[in-house]
Order: sequence, then structure tokens, then C-alpha cells
Amino acid sequence: MSETSRYEAPMRRALDLAARGPLVGGNPQVGCVLLDADGRIVAEGWHRGAGTPHAEVDALSKVTDAAGLTAVVTLEPCNHTGRTGPCSEALIAAGIGKVVFAVPDPGAVSGHGAQRLAEAGIPVVHGVLHDEAEALLRPWLEAMRRGRPWVVVKWASTLDGRAAAADGSSQWITGAAARQKVHEQRAQSDAILVGTGTVLADDPSLTARGDAGELLPAQPLPVVVGERAIPADAALHAHPRGVLQTGTRDLARVMADLHARGIRRVYVEGGPTLASAVIAAGYADEFAIYLAPALLGGPKLAIGELGIPSMDAILRLHVDTVEQLGDDLYLHAVPKEG
Amino acid sequence: MSETSRYEAPMRRALDLAARGPLVGGNPQVGCVLLDADGRIVAEGWHRGAGTPHAEVDALSKVTDAAGLTAVVTLEPCNHTGRTGPCSEALIAAGIGKVVFAVPDPGAVSGHGAQRLAEAGIPVVHGVLHDEAEALLRPWLEAMRRGRPWVVVKWASTLDGRAAAADGSSQWITGAAARQKVHEQRAQSDAILVGTGTVLADDPSLTARGDAGELLPAQPLPVVVGERAIPADAALHAHPRGVLQTGTRDLARVMADLHARGIRRVYVEGGPTLASAVIAAGYADEFAIYLAPALLGGPKLAIGELGIPSMDAILRLHVDTVEQLGDDLYLHAVPKEG
Repeated sequence: MSETSRYEAPMRRALDLAARGPLVGGNPQVGCVLLDADGRIVAEGWHRGAGTPHAEVDALSKVTDAAGLTAVVTLEPCNHTGRTGPCSEALIAAGIGKVVFAVPDPGAVSGHGAQRLAEAGIPVVHGVLHDEAEALLRPWLEAMRRGRPWVVVKWASTLDGRAAAADGSSQWITGAAARQKVHEQRAQSDAILVGTGTVLADDPSLTARGDAGELLPAQPLPVVVGERAIPADAALHAHPRGVLQTGTRDLARVMADLHARGIRRVYVEGGPTLASAVIAAGYADEFAIYLAPALLGGPKLAIGELGIPSMDAILRLHVDTVEQLGDDLYLHAVPKEG
Repeated sequence: MSETSRYEAPMRRALDLAARGPLVGGNPQVGCVLLDADGRIVAEGWHRGAGTPHAEVDALSKVTDAAGLTAVVTLEPCNHTGRTGPCSEALIAAGIGKVVFAVPDPGAVSGHGAQRLAEAGIPVVHGVLHDEAEALLRPWLEAMRRGRPWVVVKWASTLDGRAAAADGSSQWITGAAARQKVHEQRAQSDAILVGTGTVLADDPSLTARGDAGELLPAQPLPVVVGERAIPADAALHAHPRGVLQTGTRDLARVMADLHARGIRRVYVEGGPTLASAVIAAGYADEFAIYLAPALLGGPKLAIGELGIPSMDAILRLHVDTVEQLGDDLYLHAVPKEG
């Protein structure tokens, strides 16, 4: 058995543990198992969200003596003091004998833990189940690599691409099941982006709610993109997270600012002007499209101008999910490679 | 066993026979079986298209003596001399003992066969498997009831409802499998409707072709709706059926004219102006919607103005088919009742 393949089973377990952690809050989902000299798992840990112990520290806390154990962790141990101390130092201090990880930490600040461990004389193996870990952590990893959040663009439209009737009315184009899924997707985001036009037209509350209308535990930060003022009596002011107004429509500045605030996943809810601008700028990493079995015609398009002059420049998508939600159709898609 | 339920099994067989006939050509699909005194099927017939014997006559041709037999036929026997003589007279002349049918013939000219049979002293039973026969024959029955063809509106668009890029280019938004299905749907239509704008912009040939590009046996008549002239060098002039130009955009006149020509199923291929006008006028009986996994933005919408001012007037559809065709999605829908 090769050096890497012998760690695949414990790494799979670590990935399962990682997936227990929250998608939101800015930190990645990470899992860790500690192995004894015979390769048996003697402790498990995972990260439960910002401000709580990292996976390695959580696992170390389960054993009285970690000396000589092998730590198998889904992400390169961090080398950075944030709200908790660096994991590389914790592993060194615990006398860990070897560290195995799946994907390197691309963070400019948090990265280089492997180098620190090697300098301390601890053997490091990396790349075990790399692709599986990359798939699990992709939004966070890409956010760290690009210095901007991972972006999901959502819209709901009729089959002819309209988001509202000619008079602006849009309640309700989609049914209850589709609207509930939107709430769940909000709850898996660090922030919701809307344009000022939508705030002025629809006065949305942008909370993430459950079936019975109750607030879900995770509430994304509402971010209003644009220069116009939010009315003093806007429903958004009652949001449990408050509201962030960008004061600019410059998306590069908005994205950089959100990244600096630790926001890794954003959910763009529109309106059409903002959604189109985000897509046209190439920021759309995922598409959540809700299609109602209906036609409206008229001027109120879900997507406006994308700056695509001809078929050569068409934005092709890969649809990986087609799901019936009540009477509506839900499509999940990503930009097609190449 | 009731008078009607004893005929359900032979009627089901007659419906199966009916379905062997062609969808196009102006005549309905009809099947007929002849029963002896013990209820056994002794002959079968079905209609193979305009100009060939009707189902009853086809079945009668299979027996040397039909005296006293019961004819079970899916549609009320016709009472009209067209390219063939009236079936009611043929059944009377053959000495048929009883006639059982599923749905009445709504044709002003062809109808009333049951009355003629009753006047000749032949017992008539109707309504056996009425709903099944209605479902099979619905487009033809509705065409006869309304005095206008059954209308299928087709379009292909991106997920944001665009039928072309900003410069008008549209080849190819959908893939080969979707385009092949369009050819098959053309072949199941008596006529294809396009607007003059589409003829001028795209110069379509509007033939129904198979996988290898060969002409299919059934070719619908291309009908160009509008007032502008078709260029002398238009590809349409090479169509095997020729081309019909309406000379008017008045859809009520167009529909009445097509009906008078014996056209029962039309396939509206666009462009957006014609498709939108047909939908807005309430003529769309079915929708064949091809959605490509792509975005284009911009001004070239698949559906334009439908005259729907607010959500109260939204046109709700019932989607009965969602099918993956290569990378594309095919939706078949009908207007939602009520």
C-alpha cells in the first residue's frame, strides 16, 4: 500500500466529519482524525464555526497524550492566529508524529502551515483525496484564491424569462416549495446581495425563514448594492443582522470589501440590474434558477443586458440539477468550462 | 354487464387501431371492429388518411356478409360525401345490426351520422370509452368544434428567454437532439406558421427532415403570416409543398382560412412577434418549449408582448413533460384550466 493510499480511509472519515460543520461564517469546513501507530482512529474532530476550535485542536482535545500520533486533516493546518491560535503550533506542541492533509490552504495569511510543520521536523504528506476535498471546499478555496466571495446568482422567472408583470407585480410567480428553497439557500450564504432598485420597489425583509415563517438560526447579512439611499422605514432595517449598504455599484470594490469582512458565500437575489451586472462581470459561480410554469410577456425581464453581442460569446452553462418543486422547476447550473 | 361496459374491450381495440392512422392530412384517426352475435371480433379496420377508406368501410371490406354484425367505432360514423361516401349509408347498406361509438362527430357537415342510422332503424349506443377517445382525438375534435386549427406554439430560447444574440445570430442555441425533435413535430403538423420577419431574417426552408437530413414522408405546408412580400430567392420557394402567404396579420382570418383548407394541426415556429400574437389571442393549445442551458441577455426575446398588465392575468401553464434532450431541456405544456 502506498504512502497516500493507506490514508484514504481515514481521510474519507475526516471529510465526513468536515461536512458536519457549517457552510457559513467565513471559515472552511474541516475534519480531522488522529491515528495510532497501527493506523487505528483514536480521536475525531471537526470545526463547528468561527470562534470555536479548529478541527485539529478539537481532535487533540479528545486524547490525553497525542505524542507520536498521525493527524489526518482535510485542509492544510493553519499557521495563523485569529480568534484561535495556529493549528500548526498546536500540533507541534502536542508532539504529533506525522501530518497528512488533502488540500493546501490558499490563504495568504492562514497558509504555509505545512512549511512550519516541516521546519519543526514533522513529516507531512499531502494530496490524499485531494479532489474530494477540493469538491467539498470549492467555494471557500476559490474565495481564498481569488480574494472575493463565491457567488450564487438566483432568479425566479416565468418560462419566457419574466420576473414580474408589466405593472411590476410579482407575487407570487413561483409557489411555496420554490420560495422555501430560496430561504434555505439564503441560510447557506454569508450575505445576500440586492440592488437599491429592488429595495425601493419590493421592500424585502431578506430574512431566512422556515416553513412556519420562523427565523432560521443562520441569517445572512443583507447587502444593498448601489448609491441611492434606503428609506428610513424599509423592512430591511428590522433585519436581525442589520444591513450593509455599499454606497457604490462598482462590483470589484464591493467584492473586495465583502471578502475583507470575511464573507465567503454570497447569494445574489437581484433585481435584474444587479444580477445581470454580476453575471456580465464574470462573478457568477453558480446559478439557482426557478422557473414557474407560466408566461407573462412584457418588459420586466429577470435578466437584462449581459454585454453579449453574438452567438460566439453566448454564456453556456452546465445544468447539474433539474428538480420539480411543486409546480415549479428548479435548475442548478455552473458556467461551462472552456 | 351493462350495455356500454360490454363494448369497452372491443372499443379499446378500436382505439388501438385508430392510433395507427396518421395525425396529419385533415381527417381524424378512427378505428372500427365488427362483432358477431357472441361479441367476438370478426373484422378490424382503420383510417389510413384522406382519400382512403374510412375505418368502417375498411372493416366492412374484410367480411363477405356484415348482416347483423355490430360495428364498434371510435367516432360517430360520418354522414357526408367527401372523397369517399358517407359511412352511415355504407353501414345501412351492409345490413349492420347495431352501431356503437365513443365520441360524436362535431363536424357541421360530417356529423349527424347517428341520427341517420337511427332513422334507418339501427340501434345506436354512444359514449363507450368517451374520455379515452376524446383524449386521442382532442386536437381534431377541438378544431372541428371551434372552426380553427389546433395550435402548437414552439420556441427555443436560452434560460433567460432569449431566442437570439443581440446581432440576431441564433445558430445554434439548442443542440442536435432538440432540433431533431422539432423536425418530428413539424411532421406531425398540417402546416407550419412563420411570420414574414422570420422569413426575411432567417430564410428558413421549413422542411421536416430526418437524422440524416432526408425529407420525411410527411411535409407540412409552410404558411407565411404577414403582409410583406417573400423574396423571390427565398429558400421557402423550394419547399415540396410550395408556400402559402396569408397576405394578412389578422389571425382570426388566417385561422378560418386554414380551417377551410382542411388544416387541423398547425405548428407555430415564430418568430417572437407571431408567437406572441398567437398566444395573446388565446390560440395556443399546446406549448413546445426548448430551453438551452445558456444565457444571452439583450433585446432578442423569444416571447415579446402578451398584453398581460399584472399578475392577476398571468398565463399559467400545466407542464406535462420535462425531458432532457442532449444538453437542452424540452418542456411540453398546455394552458392551465380555469
